[in-house]
Amino acid sequence: MTTAAAPDGHARGAALAEAALAGDRRALARLLTAVESRTPTAESAIRILHPRAGGAHVIGITGAPGSGKSTLVNALLRELRARGRSVAVIAVDPSSPITGGAILGDRVRMQEHATDDGVFIRSMAARGHAGGLAATTDAAVAVLDAAGFDVVIVETVGTGQSEVEVVATTDTTVVLEAPGMGDEIQAIKAGIMEVADLFVINKADRDGADQVERELEGMKSLAMARDWDPPVLRTVAQQGAGVAELLAQVREHGHWLRGHGGLARKARERARLRFESLLAEASVRRAKALAGPARLEAALQGIADRTLDPYTAVDEILSQA
Amino acid sequence: MTTAAAPDGHARGAALAEAALAGDRRALARLLTAVESRTPTAESAIRILHPRAGGAHVIGITGAPGSGKSTLVNALLRELRARGRSVAVIAVDPSSPITGGAILGDRVRMQEHATDDGVFIRSMAARGHAGGLAATTDAAVAVLDAAGFDVVIVETVGTGQSEVEVVATTDTTVVLEAPGMGDEIQAIKAGIMEVADLFVINKADRDGADQVERELEGMKSLAMARDWDPPVLRTVAQQGAGVAELLAQVREHGHWLRGHGGLARKARERARLRFESLLAEASVRRAKALAGPARLEAALQGIADRTLDPYTAVDEILSQA
Repeated sequence: MTTAAAPDGHARGAALAEAALAGDRRALARLLTAVESRTPTAESAIRILHPRAGGAHVIGITGAPGSGKSTLVNALLRELRARGRSVAVIAVDPSSPITGGAILGDRVRMQEHATDDGVFIRSMAARGHAGGLAATTDAAVAVLDAAGFDVVIVETVGTGQSEVEVVATTDTTVVLEAPGMGDEIQAIKAGIMEVADLFVINKADRDGADQVERELEGMKSLAMARDWDPPVLRTVAQQGAGVAELLAQVREHGHWLRGHGGLARKARERARLRFESLLAEASVRRAKALAGPARLEAALQGIADRTLDPYTAVDEILSQA
Repeated sequence: MTTAAAPDGHARGAALAEAALAGDRRALARLLTAVESRTPTAESAIRILHPRAGGAHVIGITGAPGSGKSTLVNALLRELRARGRSVAVIAVDPSSPITGGAILGDRVRMQEHATDDGVFIRSMAARGHAGGLAATTDAAVAVLDAAGFDVVIVETVGTGQSEVEVVATTDTTVVLEAPGMGDEIQAIKAGIMEVADLFVINKADRDGADQVERELEGMKSLAMARDWDPPVLRTVAQQGAGVAELLAQVREHGHWLRGHGGLARKARERARLRFESLLAEASVRRAKALAGPARLEAALQGIADRTLDPYTAVDEILSQA
């Protein structure tokens, strides 16, 4: 039984979007929960918010566990706030596929900024939406962007295919290294190396920073030639060292993007990501609705029993659509 | 211009499928290339091969870089061959999204078995098909299964969401640990812990094996209760130590699956994975074909320019379908 007082998802989405635009942080938080869960609330909010977005500089920060991502993000936050820039952070957690629990969630650091309306920090779980993680993250970025944050930082652990996709669509992708992480860890990240706009060697006061720099320069020389040559910077995020220089380079990259059609290209990439993801969802939803549960169940069971191959099963489902 | 002599993808797929069933290893290799690239050749081959599969025991092996996966897989290979069992290995490489190059590919080990028709080893790249990695791997498994291998081993690095999905649908999932890998690496793998049917502490002759065992038992106690309690085994794969016991436990798990409806459940999970992936592909292909390139381009550009939100764009595309 539904009550007349409970607004449906769509009405709630519009209300939350308006509230978020007006600066209501609790509404913003609820909206991001909806985005993460891909509810009708999120859909109607994004219909309103997408056209309002596009003003923020979106920075992706990725690196292996232990490279000091969270510490660097905190240092960036403080530096940006000192300059009066508002900042939202989305920390993408590679969450458990079964419990859905966030593993690397760092809600503690929200407390440092709890009373500062110019800061918004959010942990976001993957929730098992294979391939949809990047699209969901981008939707969350668009919401924060529309809500008026000057800078949106997307922080993710850089060790998997999905994680590469998440940062590949940010304006400026920062890849974090640290001395003493082990060779094989480095190798895994080769995928993410190629989407890097800036390299940062964090914990640069430790032994081995020169070695990491040589390796990075070596990997850069192996990578495809790009118009933008990613600089290699050094930070000691724990002490805030090198953070101002990093921000200067981020800004420099932003200038370069604007001057070289890069922002439009990034906007196209994001548009494609969102469009493909939503088109797949909507097409599948429609095909399933037209087929009905009994025929879907028969198709699944036929594939499982190997009386039906998956292509024929799909043909049969779509032939009714 | 096409020549009459060149068979189309569908005819080639049927021919390759028949050749693979007849034991032609080169045809099998070409078929797997087609599966990886999702061509029409793969589609028509799988239409023939899917109903012939289902006989193999599919073992997933995953673990962080440095845990000794490749060495353990090689040890398993030798042990299984000594028992007269034919074995296919799919090593899933988290490949670069840009160059598509395989990073962890270990084609060297194929040479050890180059003259043995009972062994087939294949490196498979992710190829940037977000979320489709698990479905593509499962299709490759079905092809090898239909080709008659007794055991199919899927080896993947266990550090990302996609990688968890890849091994989650195997019959028996083996999660590899090793002493001295670092705490944060452990944390990342919590997702994969929950899909583990067997834990193996490799390099168990090193200091710290007891510590790893305590951590594993601790994580097990935190995980959801399951009917099957994953045993914790120890191996020194380099010397083949513990490998026979591991195989005995894999077989034990297979018996347990059969006795508890587990094989049917796994078959359903795989069927769902394949069905959902192919249904999404086919639905999107159909919607795009109906919309035509000009309207697709206008939708994309509208989203990028923020004159159109992505949901409205999708609505408009599908309204013509």
